[in-house]
Amino acid sequence: MYDVAIIGTGAAGISAALTLKQLNKNFIWFGSKKLSFKINAAEKITNYPGLISVSGKEMREVFSKQIAAQGIEITEKQVTGVYDMGDYYSLLCGSEEFDAKCVILGLGVEMQKPIPGELDNVGMGVSYCATCDGMLYKNKVMTVYAQNKDFEEEVEFLQEIAAKIYFIPLYKDYEIKGDNVEVITKRPKEIKREGRKMHMVFDDSDIESDIIFMLKSAVSPQILVPGIEVDGSHIKVNRACETSMRGVFAAGDCTGRPYQYTKAVGEGNIAAHGAVSFLAKNK
Amino acid sequence: MYDVAIIGTGAAGISAALTLKQLNKNFIWFGSKKLSFKINAAEKITNYPGLISVSGKEMREVFSKQIAAQGIEITEKQVTGVYDMGDYYSLLCGSEEFDAKCVILGLGVEMQKPIPGELDNVGMGVSYCATCDGMLYKNKVMTVYAQNKDFEEEVEFLQEIAAKIYFIPLYKDYEIKGDNVEVITKRPKEIKREGRKMHMVFDDSDIESDIIFMLKSAVSPQILVPGIEVDGSHIKVNRACETSMRGVFAAGDCTGRPYQYTKAVGEGNIAAHGAVSFLAKNK
Repeated sequence: MYDVAIIGTGAAGISAALTLKQLNKNFIWFGSKKLSFKINAAEKITNYPGLISVSGKEMREVFSKQIAAQGIEITEKQVTGVYDMGDYYSLLCGSEEFDAKCVILGLGVEMQKPIPGELDNVGMGVSYCATCDGMLYKNKVMTVYAQNKDFEEEVEFLQEIAAKIYFIPLYKDYEIKGDNVEVITKRPKEIKREGRKMHMVFDDSDIESDIIFMLKSAVSPQILVPGIEVDGSHIKVNRACETSMRGVFAAGDCTGRPYQYTKAVGEGNIAAHGAVSFLAKNK
Repeated sequence: MYDVAIIGTGAAGISAALTLKQLNKNFIWFGSKKLSFKINAAEKITNYPGLISVSGKEMREVFSKQIAAQGIEITEKQVTGVYDMGDYYSLLCGSEEFDAKCVILGLGVEMQKPIPGELDNVGMGVSYCATCDGMLYKNKVMTVYAQNKDFEEEVEFLQEIAAKIYFIPLYKDYEIKGDNVEVITKRPKEIKREGRKMHMVFDDSDIESDIIFMLKSAVSPQILVPGIEVDGSHIKVNRACETSMRGVFAAGDCTGRPYQYTKAVGEGNIAAHGAVSFLAKNK
């Protein structure tokens, strides 16, 4: 049982992890060692106090060094569900389970709205996690939607096990190719299920597969954490970064605008302190 | 008329200034070029994202460089009152007046509670600003309470014009001396007015003077901004860092715990974005 689980390796998650480490808490941190794609993509940041006019890439390098310097580990697993177990939370990563007394959500925000039909079919033909669900569809036909280049490793993993892949990159410089890959550069309009087959619908066409993988940096919070209160695409929080669920905190872009690194680190700090108070009160 | 006035050169003020500069707003920033005494005093900071295990002194140096690199000016005047003028705010610095459409308060928090009798006598024998009110008491007897070494320049200024100074340093390595200075190393208990004379009361004694200067890093918000809603020693704000007064935002320690640099920069960023939205809506 961990004291705290942090989900997300963006600016909010980084800040929460540094503070929990300083306060000597026993926590697990889920995300990517590459940290946040969004940080890396920023061209020039001039208003982050302490880093004088850096590129996103430079910022990501400093953050990586700092995490290493503090001896903090990142667990590279995708959390697919957070479930309230009464006096603790159970986090599922595919078939693995991790338990924590409280949770800090640094999920980022979905920059694209979910596609119609996407949310209704999660777990029933739509998956957000290649490594969790890929093997279940070995030698099958897969549709793989990828938000950015960071997901190409996952796409390559799927490519090795799939009979065929319809690959829908939302970015330009993709490097996925192979005999079993068909690239589609159109924007999908809708997801439909017909019997055991999934359909990705485009303006002028429709592709059929056994599973649709939606690889994106942020997932709708209500899909990840059933029961959590949201306001549009944001998680509802108060000034203490407390969500509607006891012991669950949220920080960064997932709590609303401004979508800024500085705001995100501030909330990560508040959430970490909130978690520590929560642990002290609920010993 | 400025778009925005920022009060305070701690972490919150710095963050707000960097963001307003980036957004190309016309603002004035009141505080000290030495930034925050509190930042400088920190021994080791390990949880501020982007600065890997720095001393407070190193942090202050980075912040100073960054402010200079962005070409941001600090106005070294002490704001003694912020007054609501209907559709703008008037900021008094002694006898000077500055007008701004909105205000960001990064006041810090009083680490010591006000002394009994202090708040009741502000402007009537108690002053927070040596340079504002010093000349009014030329050749008089002054009591000068100083929270830390950063105020010694102000004390020296007073020393040049006073007939006599009772100097009450709250720190150890003070360097104030002179024929007209009497150092008192006891903690004051109460401030009393008797006719036109002020009394600083100690456990076992009492000193009389014409004026009491209380030189401290943070001043009670309700003294600085008449009418603002507070909750104990903190300014009441919502998640957007809006105070009870339209167009007045607050950020950092003055809005409550955790008293952390990371939380303060986050709120400074939110407050700056809030001010920009406010300006756009009230053109």
